[in-house]
Amino acid sequence: MAVYTEFADEDLSEFVARYDIGRVLSVKGIAEGVENSNFLLATEAGQFILTLYEKRVDPADLPFFLGLMEHLAGKGINCPLPVHQRSGDILGHLAERPAAIITFLQGMWVRRPRNHHCSALGKAMAELHVAGQGFEKARPNTLSVGSWRPLFEPCRDRADDIVRGLGALVASELAYFDDNWPSDLPSGIIHADLFPDNVFFLGDELSGLIDFYFACNDMLAYDLAIALNAWCFEPDSSLNVTKARALLTAYSSVRPLTSREIEMLPILARGAALRFLLTRLHDWLTVPAGALVVPKDPSEYYQKLRFHRQVTSAAEYGLTP
Amino acid sequence: MAVYTEFADEDLSEFVARYDIGRVLSVKGIAEGVENSNFLLATEAGQFILTLYEKRVDPADLPFFLGLMEHLAGKGINCPLPVHQRSGDILGHLAERPAAIITFLQGMWVRRPRNHHCSALGKAMAELHVAGQGFEKARPNTLSVGSWRPLFEPCRDRADDIVRGLGALVASELAYFDDNWPSDLPSGIIHADLFPDNVFFLGDELSGLIDFYFACNDMLAYDLAIALNAWCFEPDSSLNVTKARALLTAYSSVRPLTSREIEMLPILARGAALRFLLTRLHDWLTVPAGALVVPKDPSEYYQKLRFHRQVTSAAEYGLTP
Repeated sequence: MAVYTEFADEDLSEFVARYDIGRVLSVKGIAEGVENSNFLLATEAGQFILTLYEKRVDPADLPFFLGLMEHLAGKGINCPLPVHQRSGDILGHLAERPAAIITFLQGMWVRRPRNHHCSALGKAMAELHVAGQGFEKARPNTLSVGSWRPLFEPCRDRADDIVRGLGALVASELAYFDDNWPSDLPSGIIHADLFPDNVFFLGDELSGLIDFYFACNDMLAYDLAIALNAWCFEPDSSLNVTKARALLTAYSSVRPLTSREIEMLPILARGAALRFLLTRLHDWLTVPAGALVVPKDPSEYYQKLRFHRQVTSAAEYGLTP
Repeated sequence: MAVYTEFADEDLSEFVARYDIGRVLSVKGIAEGVENSNFLLATEAGQFILTLYEKRVDPADLPFFLGLMEHLAGKGINCPLPVHQRSGDILGHLAERPAAIITFLQGMWVRRPRNHHCSALGKAMAELHVAGQGFEKARPNTLSVGSWRPLFEPCRDRADDIVRGLGALVASELAYFDDNWPSDLPSGIIHADLFPDNVFFLGDELSGLIDFYFACNDMLAYDLAIALNAWCFEPDSSLNVTKARALLTAYSSVRPLTSREIEMLPILARGAALRFLLTRLHDWLTVPAGALVVPKDPSEYYQKLRFHRQVTSAAEYGLTP
């Protein structure tokens, strides 16, 4: 959770006056999201999200993120739509930070995903991947395989403080991925962070996808691997094969997976587990005491990584060949 | 800022189903308030605030707080109105905590109060004091003079870590108030925490008062003393006499101060400064590292206390005798 930045009410009023959304009726900091400061903004025109981009987001990436949301919304994906200022701009400044106003999406994120949620997610993700085709901007995945070793370096000496043997395991995984990370799979726009808190439901219906600030160009099946880890494991770290099958089958019903993607799924899931293990490890060891952000426990992803190391084929995820 | 408690979406839906407010459309934790977990709840009937009462609030006080809001709203005060369940109850349980849904007030709190804000506050506070008459429940002020010594005891040895000489100053103030704290002033319901973040404005109009969880029965002029400290000092800790005069004059225009209240105002302001100095000192020294609540700096109130010690009459606050 995070609200990093405060601003004066008169500065907000001046910022909002650049938009055609009436005057401000209320603004409340939202205790969700760790990268940016998010506010629920009510104006005479309705509800919006005001985001102030903090230092973990590269301002040079903002036209990609905001442009992508606009592209996807135009293709019928339920995602936030950046609101244009009267000047046409979708990016401004507030409290000395880049700032944008986006539309508000109804819905709640699911704390305990069930099978039908995984199924709805699979379908929505495939639709996102299809809709991403034709988006004219591109952004490399800055958290893909090439970033993992530099992420690990500053944590290497203290990794075993978290779980004994973690340092050696990560070193061996990094060596494995040097030789085995695929590069020949269908690529395109991926969300890259479709955890449950970024997927809204209204009742049983998926009502929207949010938080596109990790979106990038990468292998489409890698997005699925991230979601498999985030949605289909039980609290005891065992894979729920029924949920995994629901996710993968629903995805394939919209965009059929190639045989090579299916073959590579265990490696992608293993790499996705390592990627989140490493960023959590990094945050865990580097976030100062007293910080507003509560770092997530890295050991959850250590367990998932160990699981995927044993997997020999995507059939173990419930996919029938 | 604080959101302490998480709950499952299905538990929320079940809780909200006890009310006549339609189904849940969204819920977002609000990063404001330090005592409770507050959520902005959107349902088919509109916007509400959902509050889960955490351990710093005594559940036995909740009927007083919620009943007071209902009483005041009934008298025309713009404050949140507790929503009744179909059963008639205004207090329920969610995530094993007492929980209530109250109406949402539009408006923003003012980061840099100006004269007219102080004036609007004075008028609204006096209206609140008048409207509080006739409320049938009572609650003593658990943070009045009798609580200050026990609050200070566990902090005594480390007080000088904050400001050198603080320990001796507080000890001497406690002795002073043992003999000089008044008890013969007009009493009634006071808000007891009317800081800027609890007062909403829409444009220049005061649109509402929130957060009644320190409300109690005490001397009415003590509420004014708290607000004088909270609204009328500049960032350099100097009193802005124009703001103080605006506050006091507007208050008196609705409920004229007695000559004894005016005479006692410097002592009340000095006591109010000590009360907030002590609670901030206590929080500063006892909140564990890594806590989500960022404690407020006690030294701001040390400066205000020193100021009021020099004051000889309410004329120094801009009140013409």
